[in-house]
Amino acid sequence: MSGVTNGKTTIQLDRLKDDILALSEIGADPDDRGIYRMAFTDADMEGKRWLMQRMEAAGAEIRMDGAGNVIGRLSGSAPEAPAIVIGSHTDTVPRAGMLDGSLGVLCGLECLRVIHEQGISLPKPVELISFSDEEGRFGGMLGSQSFAGMITPETLFATDLDGMVLRDAMQAQGLEPMEALGARRLPESLAGYFELHIEQGPVLDRSQESVGIVENITGLVKWVVRFRGEANHAGTTPMEMRRDAFMGLADFAHECPRILDENGGEYSRATIGSVQIVPGAPNTVPGEVEFSLDVRDTDAALLEELTRAMRKALSAIARRRHLMMEFEVQSEIAPVPCDTGFVDLLESQAKALDLSYRRMPSGAAHDAQIVASIAPIAMIFVPSRDGVSHSPAEWTDWEHVKNGAQLLLHSVLEAARS
Amino acid sequence: MSGVTNGKTTIQLDRLKDDILALSEIGADPDDRGIYRMAFTDADMEGKRWLMQRMEAAGAEIRMDGAGNVIGRLSGSAPEAPAIVIGSHTDTVPRAGMLDGSLGVLCGLECLRVIHEQGISLPKPVELISFSDEEGRFGGMLGSQSFAGMITPETLFATDLDGMVLRDAMQAQGLEPMEALGARRLPESLAGYFELHIEQGPVLDRSQESVGIVENITGLVKWVVRFRGEANHAGTTPMEMRRDAFMGLADFAHECPRILDENGGEYSRATIGSVQIVPGAPNTVPGEVEFSLDVRDTDAALLEELTRAMRKALSAIARRRHLMMEFEVQSEIAPVPCDTGFVDLLESQAKALDLSYRRMPSGAAHDAQIVASIAPIAMIFVPSRDGVSHSPAEWTDWEHVKNGAQLLLHSVLEAARS
Repeated sequence: MSGVTNGKTTIQLDRLKDDILALSEIGADPDDRGIYRMAFTDADMEGKRWLMQRMEAAGAEIRMDGAGNVIGRLSGSAPEAPAIVIGSHTDTVPRAGMLDGSLGVLCGLECLRVIHEQGISLPKPVELISFSDEEGRFGGMLGSQSFAGMITPETLFATDLDGMVLRDAMQAQGLEPMEALGARRLPESLAGYFELHIEQGPVLDRSQESVGIVENITGLVKWVVRFRGEANHAGTTPMEMRRDAFMGLADFAHECPRILDENGGEYSRATIGSVQIVPGAPNTVPGEVEFSLDVRDTDAALLEELTRAMRKALSAIARRRHLMMEFEVQSEIAPVPCDTGFVDLLESQAKALDLSYRRMPSGAAHDAQIVASIAPIAMIFVPSRDGVSHSPAEWTDWEHVKNGAQLLLHSVLEAARS
Repeated sequence: MSGVTNGKTTIQLDRLKDDILALSEIGADPDDRGIYRMAFTDADMEGKRWLMQRMEAAGAEIRMDGAGNVIGRLSGSAPEAPAIVIGSHTDTVPRAGMLDGSLGVLCGLECLRVIHEQGISLPKPVELISFSDEEGRFGGMLGSQSFAGMITPETLFATDLDGMVLRDAMQAQGLEPMEALGARRLPESLAGYFELHIEQGPVLDRSQESVGIVENITGLVKWVVRFRGEANHAGTTPMEMRRDAFMGLADFAHECPRILDENGGEYSRATIGSVQIVPGAPNTVPGEVEFSLDVRDTDAALLEELTRAMRKALSAIARRRHLMMEFEVQSEIAPVPCDTGFVDLLESQAKALDLSYRRMPSGAAHDAQIVASIAPIAMIFVPSRDGVSHSPAEWTDWEHVKNGAQLLLHSVLEAARS
């Protein structure tokens, strides 16, 4: 049973732990200790059914919408009042850990249980939603995009890495794909959206603060860049006669810190995570290199400055080294601010609960940034040990889990009351 | 028929052309216009048989030694005199062009023909040898290493990329593998070794000189270097908390030109030709990078200086970026000088023939550097159009082929006379 400590309603860590461990069994591979609940697989659907049972036991009215989003709702006392939504996802990457999106859903589940058990009467309804395919088997954020009315019939033809079509994967699980378009919610029905997530970065773990209050979600520019030079024999081609494509990349990588210093801010990031050389033989001067460039910032203007400076650097290097340069923009996602009223609410609740916290950006993408198009959003981070995520090694100390869930509960209560 | 022009014995380009075109049909793939005569394949053996017939027709005494080397010999007038050997190879890389090693063998064949036809009496025997597996299906230089007495029974257990064992490949072609050890020649039987080869680099093609007189064959150090850092989320990991293995490589690549300038010479080369990143995902900070480093110089002391400086740079970068660094030495081959007497001989003959020439190093490895352990060596280069080799696009203008063959003939005549 949930209780009241120091005059505060509290979540029960023991049953939250039980839920986390129970859900982590679904899709678990005993051989590699990873969890496999990729969107619309049998394990993912089993996770959704398990969640619906738990929501129902928590007193919520349950349903699955056309996008496969699982929704549990506690009605409010004011008829027709817009809802406070707690959201996250239970699908996983391949070989996942037990937290990631699931933690946010299960903390939300504990909030519903506490509200229901204690008979807390709130004017606004409180909904818990677990979104489909956040992790991107079919591109990512399908559930929240459907919820926000951002998908079209074309979206259903997205494919996974094995060429499986989203539409067919949904049908194989008894879902009617076109119904995903009916999952759309109107802004009028929503009063706010709260998402708790593991940080997936090292900042809170290093500072040993219990919670992060997210101020904004970073925007992202993702390019594939190609330099083409000339493949030559590594022994017979004098250095000054080379058009070495890899050395073009090395020049660029070397300039990235300068570009960040000159054009970016505290939250600027640039990563070269993937590199392919053609022909890629030790005794051949690289004729071509293709690499990924991932640039992020929480500030749209800084992000634009950064990408402009990077384009200039790439062009200058190509000219200097007599390379051909081309790039494809793979994605461009604008930064999304969290609702400032909610940020202040989270901060005042964190203070009232005596939690150590910091205001910070989210460097990772989340359903919240999609939902931001139809509702004010708020995000809570809890520490990721060593910054690790998307791995069976992912972990958050139970104390931090408890504190995060506690902050979620009180912020949702406050938002649903007002 | 060969003739005499301006008082000079001359090779006949027409029949040399015919030989080049005829041999290029053996192992040719009409689909990709490449030639496939990898060592000890049926096509390679067919090439060897074709060559033996042509050698016999040129008046040579023919044999195949235990390593599969094809040898044609014109006896000298002085009994027991050591031989002048003309060598190269007719095996190819997969999807080869028609020149590479074959050109040297066929120019040598034309030399034998001219000597035989014109009844030129030479005190020393002249041998033409086509060495087995120069290109390295089973590691490379098998024929010349057998010839120089550098192989052991263990050598015969080398495997190709498909796991085929050298011994089995030889047996399948009717060769008795252990006989390869009997291919050894004693230094006393050799007066000198001449090899003509395409340059496989751009220097002569750019300068439009007909022949290169090789002064030395570059030494080579080949490493595989690994930096290990930490794989992290590209969005959530602040730049200053990263241990980005790829950025370690970028730092090193950036320092290579400085290291060459400070420690190397005119013929120093450094190449990073192969790079693998783990995990290699665009949104993940590289946790590990493995790359090849190929460093060459014609001077053993400079090569040693270069590798020492590179080790220092790698260690310093690893410390600075908090990476683990390890490297494996994959090969270390000392530079080999050509015989200075032969270099002078080639130069005086080039002048007498009124050929444009330059003294230069060989940046590529050749059988000559193996033979150097038992005989004085000489090498002649002819231009590679655009520096291209190991490709169906490989080409040398006929005029240059003629000039190279002419220089080979006259230098061999001179060496066999003295």
